[in-house]
Amino acid sequence: MPDQNAPAQPPHRRRSESSRRAILDASLDLCAQHGYGPVTVEAIAARAGVSKKTIYRWWPSKGAVVLEALNDAANPAADFPDSGDLREDLVVQMGGLVRGLLSDRRVGRALVGLIADTHHDPRLAHGLVDDLFGPRVDDARRRLLKARDAGQIRSDADPDLLIELLYAPLYYRLLLHQGTLQDADELRVLVDHVLRSFAPPS
Amino acid sequence: MPDQNAPAQPPHRRRSESSRRAILDASLDLCAQHGYGPVTVEAIAARAGVSKKTIYRWWPSKGAVVLEALNDAANPAADFPDSGDLREDLVVQMGGLVRGLLSDRRVGRALVGLIADTHHDPRLAHGLVDDLFGPRVDDARRRLLKARDAGQIRSDADPDLLIELLYAPLYYRLLLHQGTLQDADELRVLVDHVLRSFAPPS
Repeated sequence: MPDQNAPAQPPHRRRSESSRRAILDASLDLCAQHGYGPVTVEAIAARAGVSKKTIYRWWPSKGAVVLEALNDAANPAADFPDSGDLREDLVVQMGGLVRGLLSDRRVGRALVGLIADTHHDPRLAHGLVDDLFGPRVDDARRRLLKARDAGQIRSDADPDLLIELLYAPLYYRLLLHQGTLQDADELRVLVDHVLRSFAPPS
Repeated sequence: MPDQNAPAQPPHRRRSESSRRAILDASLDLCAQHGYGPVTVEAIAARAGVSKKTIYRWWPSKGAVVLEALNDAANPAADFPDSGDLREDLVVQMGGLVRGLLSDRRVGRALVGLIADTHHDPRLAHGLVDDLFGPRVDDARRRLLKARDAGQIRSDADPDLLIELLYAPLYYRLLLHQGTLQDADELRVLVDHVLRSFAPPS
């Protein structure tokens, strides 16, 4: 006899992890091959070996599939370390973000296309802001507030302005065709300049 | 008798300025109404009261029309003043850019759509970088080098990094749905933080 108190299995729990992975991988592979624009849910389904109906059961649009694929790719590429050394933690985290997402041809093309698509699709825009960026901005803010409490940055430092100054150049380069940061040395120069303006009074 | 030495009138000289303006205005109006994506050359032609053929005579694509419209709109909105006070000049110039372009609904929507489109169209990407951004980045660089010569920023300041730190947050906000800077006070905070990290040693 079934346990009446057991919660009903939510539908998304029933999707097979191997199908989910095949669908997400197919979406990124197709973006890498053709760019985001021409990719269709049909093509993703065909490549993943599932039906179009299966995809639409779990995701409302191609963009939603790509968003989830990027979210998976962002872990652990963009995870935030906490070694106690803010400068090095930023260089490590931003380096992971650049290598694993922004300058990775497969993932980077999908991200650029998705960002473009969010400007036609408010639901997707919310997904980008709340699901992809939100939790990572929260992580960065926590790390910066900890550094502020430790006196490593000035006590009136605005963590959100600091985040903008650190990360905006990475997206500016990607979205406005300015090339990506080449290596850790270039990242260190960026991080050092930003941290210098938030340095505690000596 | 015609002067044999007179240069042949280049074709683009013959286009009527009033048709050109009507076409550019129509492209921005339609982007504001529908977003960039659904706008077609046919619709621009119909709204401007010209034939599709006329548009294709002067521009290769919808994107090229919108690029020229934005380039016109950027003058004088994004012109660079030179009062001798670098901080105030930056606040004035960036304020003009935000008000006249980025946060202007008519122009801002067209710009976002155009940037998205450049990721499918390499020729348009070159136009964006070389025609729209290039000359303005050159202006900013000249102004910053002058300030550096005057000792207002440190002698080893990299003007291109400075430009990135100042302008990337404006585009980051626009393209990643982070809202636009609200007023001159918010701009001053940004400018002050960036200039602080390039301040000459006291």
